[in-house]
Amino acid sequence: MAETIAREANTAFSVLKTLSNEERSDALHQIYAGLKARKYEILQYNKLDMDSATANNLSSSLIKRLDLSGNGKFDAMLQGILDVAALPDPIGKCTLARKLDEGLELYRVTAPIGVLLIIFESRPEVIANITALAIKSGNAAILKGGKESYQTFKILSDIVNQVLDHHTKVPKDAIKLIESREEVGDLLSQDKYIDLVIPRGSNSLVRNIKENTKIPVLGHADGICSIFVDESADIAKSVRIIVDSKTNYPAGCNAVEQLLVHQSVAQDKIKLNQIHQALRNAGVTVHVTPEILDKLDSTDGVEAAGPDAFDFEYLSLDISVKSVESLEDAISHINQHSSKHTDCILTEVKANADKFLKGVDSAGVYWNCSTRFADGFRYGFGTEVGISTNKIHARGPVGLEGLMSYQYQLRGNGHIAAEYKGAGGNKSFVHEDISTNVRF
Amino acid sequence: MAETIAREANTAFSVLKTLSNEERSDALHQIYAGLKARKYEILQYNKLDMDSATANNLSSSLIKRLDLSGNGKFDAMLQGILDVAALPDPIGKCTLARKLDEGLELYRVTAPIGVLLIIFESRPEVIANITALAIKSGNAAILKGGKESYQTFKILSDIVNQVLDHHTKVPKDAIKLIESREEVGDLLSQDKYIDLVIPRGSNSLVRNIKENTKIPVLGHADGICSIFVDESADIAKSVRIIVDSKTNYPAGCNAVEQLLVHQSVAQDKIKLNQIHQALRNAGVTVHVTPEILDKLDSTDGVEAAGPDAFDFEYLSLDISVKSVESLEDAISHINQHSSKHTDCILTEVKANADKFLKGVDSAGVYWNCSTRFADGFRYGFGTEVGISTNKIHARGPVGLEGLMSYQYQLRGNGHIAAEYKGAGGNKSFVHEDISTNVRF
Repeated sequence: MAETIAREANTAFSVLKTLSNEERSDALHQIYAGLKARKYEILQYNKLDMDSATANNLSSSLIKRLDLSGNGKFDAMLQGILDVAALPDPIGKCTLARKLDEGLELYRVTAPIGVLLIIFESRPEVIANITALAIKSGNAAILKGGKESYQTFKILSDIVNQVLDHHTKVPKDAIKLIESREEVGDLLSQDKYIDLVIPRGSNSLVRNIKENTKIPVLGHADGICSIFVDESADIAKSVRIIVDSKTNYPAGCNAVEQLLVHQSVAQDKIKLNQIHQALRNAGVTVHVTPEILDKLDSTDGVEAAGPDAFDFEYLSLDISVKSVESLEDAISHINQHSSKHTDCILTEVKANADKFLKGVDSAGVYWNCSTRFADGFRYGFGTEVGISTNKIHARGPVGLEGLMSYQYQLRGNGHIAAEYKGAGGNKSFVHEDISTNVRF
Repeated sequence: MAETIAREANTAFSVLKTLSNEERSDALHQIYAGLKARKYEILQYNKLDMDSATANNLSSSLIKRLDLSGNGKFDAMLQGILDVAALPDPIGKCTLARKLDEGLELYRVTAPIGVLLIIFESRPEVIANITALAIKSGNAAILKGGKESYQTFKILSDIVNQVLDHHTKVPKDAIKLIESREEVGDLLSQDKYIDLVIPRGSNSLVRNIKENTKIPVLGHADGICSIFVDESADIAKSVRIIVDSKTNYPAGCNAVEQLLVHQSVAQDKIKLNQIHQALRNAGVTVHVTPEILDKLDSTDGVEAAGPDAFDFEYLSLDISVKSVESLEDAISHINQHSSKHTDCILTEVKANADKFLKGVDSAGVYWNCSTRFADGFRYGFGTEVGISTNKIHARGPVGLEGLMSYQYQLRGNGHIAAEYKGAGGNKSFVHEDISTNVRF
């Protein structure tokens, strides 16, 4: 069954890949219209999910995430589909063009990746968003929602399926919506047909998926972000940035989880306590090593750092704090302990910042600004597929580009290798860059 | 032990990543000098490998690949190191620059991936080539050679180790040369420290590695390339291209393995037999389906296509041939049966070519030219790390670019998220593209 789903999506991809931007965008307009026409029905089903979440005593933040009715969320979801439809066509852009010889031209052209498997928890609006992104980028997608949003997922998928069933160009199997929990494990083994898995949800969801598939996974399990307060840091500026990075949204993957303080700052009681006081005022508990504890004026909101304090993502108003001997030690600590998401140096010395940005091996390397900026919308990507801590393919906040691959087109007129040097002949290649201002 | 090796390489990477182009290139010049000074010693050890290969009755083609002494191969290997040293610095190129707000600037900057694990069979000159590419690109590398080239590998690695031991900048652990067979399995499980595996060797080597690691693998197991002879193909041109694609180097991954013939050509006895005659003259055995067999004038060098004839890489003077009903059927057959390496259409109708190039989901999509052009040197990449049939990260022939990732640098001056819309504040982002003409 999982194999059938994956194979059908793959077959649909072969068709979707060849459609024009107008044909793909038209399908998005029709999905928009289909969802808009049935708004009240969708909200009724959404209410069922909310009622059942309340009956099951799920957390208020989860219930809030489930709710499509409040705060203009439904209309924003619909508008998001139109926004994606209006984006420039990501397919067929030429990124390299080279004349190999007279009449033999090489083009590197952007192309969709293939079949995406997208697994998400709650947030039912993701269905509309991901469906739009997949069709726009020419990728087929298999979507699996969480059980908390089952009713909403079901009505949304019925509508999407009905629209695509009647669409003359986009094949209906291009978007597959999977309801049952059991399929996921089997789908994760369909590496013959599925090219990329995108999990959107908790760390444990992502970690579990990464451990159970050979298909590449785009995303991140942990967001263990660090801030290093350099010897030359401006303390007032630092305090603002540290507090924002920790408290602006502590559950975010881009929230800071550990603070490394240069020993000269750690030994300066005024500076150290200024940082601590600001964190206390913001309700943050600091988990500190003994050399930090020694210097603190107050032990209010202070705990001793546990053994895993520097390999841990709190996702709450907690932060680990330790002293490091030098900039080099900070870089080395981060490269060993961070999750390679986003790490920041606070310093007034540009050479120190440059050294840190060059030495730290994370997707985001920041100087004198909040780690909370690590976000596709804040980067101006228009949309965000996720944040990747992989070092292969897309890294950091991932926009539509992360759903694209490329192909090499070689256009000739009877050219054969045997006429060229290295393959038996005497001809040389020209290797002359030509204009990339072409669309395919 | 494998963990120690991988961790040490990872630690060395943290240093290598921060070195300047001059420092990295200087190490290549010293390795060049070290190998050059000990040429005759190296060739003596190489002779031991050749003698033992002869004593073990290894194939003449394998012995030829082992031999560093003939045909200017040693000098070419040395020159290759200097060529890599002279390449432009791949690190620190800015590929996106955006002002998010006054004083808050985002830069996407090329950066090395991390630690590469490179496993290869025979061809001892690969050691010099890969060492040079790794250091130049700022990646640490763990290299493992095949047992047939053990003696050559050992002397080359001794020299590289000695040079790096004395180099003041590049840490010696940046290049780790592993002799024993046992380590490989353990290294493949070091996904905490190793970022990319690059196997260079037989299909079975690559397949075995892909099945035994969670680390991304750059490369290809199979090269099942197809040529489709369209209704409108020029037969004289087609014959040249088909024969070259099959016979120029049948053991190459870019050699054609299957021929799909439009039914109108398959039913045209003159055209079909012209193709067959040319293949026979070149010593090629055709493995044909019944409808093709019916039309052939001669059964000389003809066999019936077996059940796996269209999912098979011959790597010899053999080719599978079948008829397809249409261009669409050819595309669909290729998307199901090819290994997504390189596939070609022969046609005089540009619209058919465009449809094929858009619909076929392979790294290389060709029109009227030999599949044998699928090669980094022929593409003008200067060097080739391998050919990838992955759809994530590098695809097709992979040059130095395939060893690069990128990082986002965000440079601010006290900026915090809470002041901006969406995170509690009222400020809007500027999102203005700025010059990428900067180096980091």
